Amino acid sequence: MSDEFDVIVIGAGPAGENVAARAVRGGLSAAVVEEDLAGGECSYWACVPSKALLRPVELAADVRRVPGMSTGPLDVAAVLARRDEAVSHLDDAGQVKWIKSVPAEFVRGRGRLSGPLRVEVTAPGGAVRLLTARHAVVLATGSRAALPPIPGLREAAPWTSHEVTVAQEIPKRLVVVGGGVVACEMTQAMHGLGAEETTMLVRGRSLLDRMEPFAGKLLRDSLADGGVDVRFGVEVTKVERSVPGGPVTVHLSEGPPITADELLMATGRRPATGDLGLGTVGLPEKGPVEVDDSMRATGVPEGWLYAVGDVNGRNLLTHMGKYQARVCGDVIAARVRGDRDDLPGLRAVADSLGAPQVVFTDPQVCAVGRTEAAARSAGFDVRVVEYDLASVTGAYLLGEDYRGRAKAVVDERRRVLLGVTFVGAGVAELLHSATIAVTGEVPLDRLWHAVPSFPTVSEIWLRLLEEYGL
Amino acid sequence: MSDEFDVIVIGAGPAGENVAARAVRGGLSAAVVEEDLAGGECSYWACVPSKALLRPVELAADVRRVPGMSTGPLDVAAVLARRDEAVSHLDDAGQVKWIKSVPAEFVRGRGRLSGPLRVEVTAPGGAVRLLTARHAVVLATGSRAALPPIPGLREAAPWTSHEVTVAQEIPKRLVVVGGGVVACEMTQAMHGLGAEETTMLVRGRSLLDRMEPFAGKLLRDSLADGGVDVRFGVEVTKVERSVPGGPVTVHLSEGPPITADELLMATGRRPATGDLGLGTVGLPEKGPVEVDDSMRATGVPEGWLYAVGDVNGRNLLTHMGKYQARVCGDVIAARVRGDRDDLPGLRAVADSLGAPQVVFTDPQVCAVGRTEAAARSAGFDVRVVEYDLASVTGAYLLGEDYRGRAKAVVDERRRVLLGVTFVGAGVAELLHSATIAVTGEVPLDRLWHAVPSFPTVSEIWLRLLEEYGL
Repeated sequence: MSDEFDVIVIGAGPAGENVAARAVRGGLSAAVVEEDLAGGECSYWACVPSKALLRPVELAADVRRVPGMSTGPLDVAAVLARRDEAVSHLDDAGQVKWIKSVPAEFVRGRGRLSGPLRVEVTAPGGAVRLLTARHAVVLATGSRAALPPIPGLREAAPWTSHEVTVAQEIPKRLVVVGGGVVACEMTQAMHGLGAEETTMLVRGRSLLDRMEPFAGKLLRDSLADGGVDVRFGVEVTKVERSVPGGPVTVHLSEGPPITADELLMATGRRPATGDLGLGTVGLPEKGPVEVDDSMRATGVPEGWLYAVGDVNGRNLLTHMGKYQARVCGDVIAARVRGDRDDLPGLRAVADSLGAPQVVFTDPQVCAVGRTEAAARSAGFDVRVVEYDLASVTGAYLLGEDYRGRAKAVVDERRRVLLGVTFVGAGVAELLHSATIAVTGEVPLDRLWHAVPSFPTVSEIWLRLLEEYGL
Repeated sequence: MSDEFDVIVIGAGPAGENVAARAVRGGLSAAVVEEDLAGGECSYWACVPSKALLRPVELAADVRRVPGMSTGPLDVAAVLARRDEAVSHLDDAGQVKWIKSVPAEFVRGRGRLSGPLRVEVTAPGGAVRLLTARHAVVLATGSRAALPPIPGLREAAPWTSHEVTVAQEIPKRLVVVGGGVVACEMTQAMHGLGAEETTMLVRGRSLLDRMEPFAGKLLRDSLADGGVDVRFGVEVTKVERSVPGGPVTVHLSEGPPITADELLMATGRRPATGDLGLGTVGLPEKGPVEVDDSMRATGVPEGWLYAVGDVNGRNLLTHMGKYQARVCGDVIAARVRGDRDDLPGLRAVADSLGAPQVVFTDPQVCAVGRTEAAARSAGFDVRVVEYDLASVTGAYLLGEDYRGRAKAVVDERRRVLLGVTFVGAGVAELLHSATIAVTGEVPLDRLWHAVPSFPTVSEIWLRLLEEYGL
């Protein structure tokens, strides 16, 4: 078994896997090192299981809006079983097989830099193997849930996304700390699947605070209407759980403590750079690995180190990690061949132009590109248009009491879209139209000819452009 | 009450209404003439009621695919009541109010050309009023269901789209003749709402034969699996209904006759040009009114006659009629003002580039632009890529046994998309991404940077582009 490869990738999440696949497609040999499950967070403890848990909850909400329809009792065990199938019962045999089919070498163990182009792998049994890269090492170790320093918190063994997504039973009483995507999605999923008493504790004043303000407001209203106790401006001061697996008591900055069956901490993520050996190549040991638009780490002589996905801190989203990985694998191959390395496909321009995101709640929250606030602070000549999604016939026809809103942020100078936000039922697949418009910088005068089919929710495009004055 | 207007529009369907609104926005006065309900076929007897009837059927299919979920018994009366609400109980007061708010004059009666720039309106009571247009007359009379010359058919008073969409009860036994969009949608709706014995009789060899062949095949399989008897290569030779409202017997070119409670003829539509007075301005009395890309009728001296929507035969789709109407209203205003009339917004380029269509069946069938066959016969340098939608994680997460397919038709010379077809659950709103890509002629190398959000069905875009070789 050779210990030398053209490219060595540390981390076999979606980003790592895609770097290897693209590099091999470009004519190189590759090894992928993974200490945990090949497939990464996304496949087992994030996007995939969370969507599997949310699907019946979302669909039940859709059904409630349609007169004449109702749902039968939800078989939660069947939902969890389908989720288990979706995460391959936490078995990565299929992913390992896929990596081998690339073909790339799969190396099970903990990967760590040990100098330029060198990776030390500690196998589960403790054996150490030294791998050498001829051309590049790519870091794709992802991120880990971050826990704030709250007295008693670690001892109480709270859930993070890692545990809630693979929960084998639904707690009756749940406290969720956080107001971002994980907090919102998992609150919705757990509450919908049986967590009758669900309390969300949000330090700030809104949900989803990186998105347009109306998004968090509409979602808060929906969660509150559904019976979730959403509290803003609250901090957790202390956590107590005297019996492992027993009830947990959460003390707050104001009001009485809350006792629950489980506590979910959804308080952000941190790049997984701990013990990655960054110091051996002259980089800071902590924090994201800074990269340029070709995913090459800045500040490393000879430019042999790359980082893709969450670990570089650009966009903590699976699909953006995979996108970066495609760029990265291709650019490494181009550089090895001595080809031009500055073609359009070899720069991750979408990281800044238009990273899309879908929050699979009810309403769905979808956004791509810049918010109004972000566009203004970046100095663009901004004009915004907004429209009530419920006034679109295609939305009205989805059911009664449809609530939603759309907003487009226009760069007035170039008459292109800088960002679009859709909030409402049935908009998850609509987002890609905005992603193409924003990333493709399609002029508004051209979008005017892209006629939405009637009666779909997509007709919001016509309304936004009419609002703009077309 | 003045009898002279800058623009007179005959027909107050969505196309007619939009012409008036855009012309008025452009500084002109307008009158809209309508003999039936303002709002047109779409609002009362087509898109809107059909979608209202299909929504619970579609959603029930979605629910069936999700383990652990089930639907309660369907309250058909509530579905029909919601449909009645959606069609405003066949009362056009709201639409008339909207037209007046434009502001435009609403004239109730049968409009007919009676020479250049002259429109004769016969009111419901028989009174005739002569209107004169200073600048333009716009025909927006839509289309009517066409019935083939089958012995006994007219006497049997069959349903067309006009009756089935506003049905007050669901026939237990239904025969549907046709294989196009209306036939497919209404078969699905009626069968899902209680037409236990539903038979589709299709003269040709496939459903939806203007679309990519796999679309009709997937839909046929779904209908057949759901219990619909779909027969190809069958012609109706005779129809008998001895008692009005009683059972109807349909005789076939082969096999025994079928007796049913109702017969739906979905055998195409014809431009509504009968008794429109086309001869008084030198045009043929029958057939579509031919127009150029500014919607101006060809062959009329002085160029004062326009036609938008179904009546011009370009694209029999509500949203395309409205699109043509926006172009038409704007171009008339520009010409009256003496402004340039050839700006990009003043030509209906999407009619040929990318008219999108969604068939709201299960699976949904969505297409925009050219099929492979159409692109090849138009002489393009075509390459196609296809992908199994069920292999996309976002589709898998919608439920079990997901079936779907996508196809993209590429113009190899320019590396832009000529057409895209999506078939599967949850793709109705995805279509607009393709409409923007096709109409905007966004190069494939740019689409590569439009990253689909994971895990949505939209990831099919990545798969198609990878299949292409990006």
